[in-house]
Amino acid sequence: MCQHARVPSPAATGITPEQVERTYSVIQPHIRITPALEVSGSDFGLAGFPLVCKLEHLQHAGSFKTRGAFANLLLRDVPPVGVVAASGGNHGAAVAYAAMRTGSPARIFVPTVSSPAKIARIRSYGAELVVGGDRYADALAASQEWAAASGALQVHAYDQIETLLGQATLGLELSRQVAPALDTLLVPVGGGGLIGGLAAWFGGRTRVIGVEPLGAPTLTEARRAGRPVDAPAGSIAADSLAPRQVGQLMFPIAERYVERVVLVSDAAIRDAQAALWSVLRLVLEPGGAASVAALLSRAYVPEDTERVGIILSGANTTSVNFEAS
Amino acid sequence: MCQHARVPSPAATGITPEQVERTYSVIQPHIRITPALEVSGSDFGLAGFPLVCKLEHLQHAGSFKTRGAFANLLLRDVPPVGVVAASGGNHGAAVAYAAMRTGSPARIFVPTVSSPAKIARIRSYGAELVVGGDRYADALAASQEWAAASGALQVHAYDQIETLLGQATLGLELSRQVAPALDTLLVPVGGGGLIGGLAAWFGGRTRVIGVEPLGAPTLTEARRAGRPVDAPAGSIAADSLAPRQVGQLMFPIAERYVERVVLVSDAAIRDAQAALWSVLRLVLEPGGAASVAALLSRAYVPEDTERVGIILSGANTTSVNFEAS
Repeated sequence: MCQHARVPSPAATGITPEQVERTYSVIQPHIRITPALEVSGSDFGLAGFPLVCKLEHLQHAGSFKTRGAFANLLLRDVPPVGVVAASGGNHGAAVAYAAMRTGSPARIFVPTVSSPAKIARIRSYGAELVVGGDRYADALAASQEWAAASGALQVHAYDQIETLLGQATLGLELSRQVAPALDTLLVPVGGGGLIGGLAAWFGGRTRVIGVEPLGAPTLTEARRAGRPVDAPAGSIAADSLAPRQVGQLMFPIAERYVERVVLVSDAAIRDAQAALWSVLRLVLEPGGAASVAALLSRAYVPEDTERVGIILSGANTTSVNFEAS
Repeated sequence: MCQHARVPSPAATGITPEQVERTYSVIQPHIRITPALEVSGSDFGLAGFPLVCKLEHLQHAGSFKTRGAFANLLLRDVPPVGVVAASGGNHGAAVAYAAMRTGSPARIFVPTVSSPAKIARIRSYGAELVVGGDRYADALAASQEWAAASGALQVHAYDQIETLLGQATLGLELSRQVAPALDTLLVPVGGGGLIGGLAAWFGGRTRVIGVEPLGAPTLTEARRAGRPVDAPAGSIAADSLAPRQVGQLMFPIAERYVERVVLVSDAAIRDAQAALWSVLRLVLEPGGAASVAALLSRAYVPEDTERVGIILSGANTTSVNFEAS
């Protein structure tokens, strides 16, 4: 599947299985081993292929980002002034949570597009919150300025080796939970930290497929151009899957080990959220449901006996209201 | 803990470990192996005891009742006219689902107190639905009348040996998932089918504690009287935990093997629903969250190293609305 022979070797990025194992041993005491639930495609009205759902939205702070956050805070030197991060919301909540648990101050920059659920989470973990700018890229610029001025450690949401190593531990954990191994894994893509880590971990042993919103096709555009380039950033999943570009670190890994990237509409994402509730009683935010959208919209159609895994990656949403019931 | 020596032996009920194993082998192809998620009491602001959450609300049709429903439909002779059940809602949804999957007609009687979420589920599984009467007992009477007239097989929500055997398989499954074994298991109680099955399975090896709403204390009243007696049936969990009495079959099992029954307020149940969402991103109906209410309200206080299990038992609620987000 590698069409760009001049792209550097994935191993040159340092995201090796040995480093992933080491990272897992460091962060494991702080994270949840999230369940892998096996159901059937037929539960969703599809063919009866085995479908393994990794319920990573049950992670501390509500998304996989907590793995990368702890990897940064535990593997890098954190100065007394603490850490700073820019985020659509989930990474910010994760860094705020990890900083609270490890006793460091945290300052989180989010764009105005971040959902109220995410902003409330970040505040609840005791971080300083700065809301400003229209998009993730604006928050990133503001956070970098503050990091330079204050000396705080910048924790990048995806383009940082420790972030990729942390997200890769999700693959290690899933490998231990599932036997026989998965044929295929569907992974939502924003900046590419999750799919980069997972693709490096699996190294071609399991087919890795990216899923992006039609309105935010960062990896699709990067593959077309042969390098990370700016893409549109509009979608109902814009607060989790819509930075302007995928990361520089993940791109060579994706070129080598991501077989394909499929696109899903916002309507398909909404359908997936509804189906996940109706069929499994799981509540996901739009970005967190993208893998299911790829199946329901038939953007990816498995063979009848294909063992398919999906990452349910985030659940920081305001869709739940017990007062109303 | 047995204070009523004249109560018959639990073994006389036929709910033996061997029968539970046999039932599991029959129903297992039709049900989901639901996850057991290990977290810490400290995640909920309690002491740091190990806390195993059995996510049984992710079962087909949204509650543990599906186990007992399949046990009835697969272990008993179903006439061509099909099956009939009375239910606060979850048992009805489960019987409707199991009947759909096994190709039998189903008629479900529910009281007007049944939630719109449950009524919609029952209809979605293709059952005939009859709504009438104020409480579960009214629906039960109507269903018995119809069973006598039609010859349909009555599937009792809790006072039927196959129902107890089916619910007991949840204990078998949990035993296989968790090591070392749990010290204590907190179980919500309505008619007592779940706690009866679980207590019979564990047979004293794990301490079983019942949890009831203050407004619907069926097992508490039965233990006080030494036999099943009428109790009030008012609570926000009235559509899942409020028949008038516990079953005759479960009572001797509870007398022998249920160490204690604790009571929780409706406010504690609401707090538990909110905490389950905030801490774990899980959505439960009121009755399904009762075990957590017992911990948060300190109706049950574990020792620091006690291995505690909770059954999250049902999620048929209208508290989720993706349009609003």
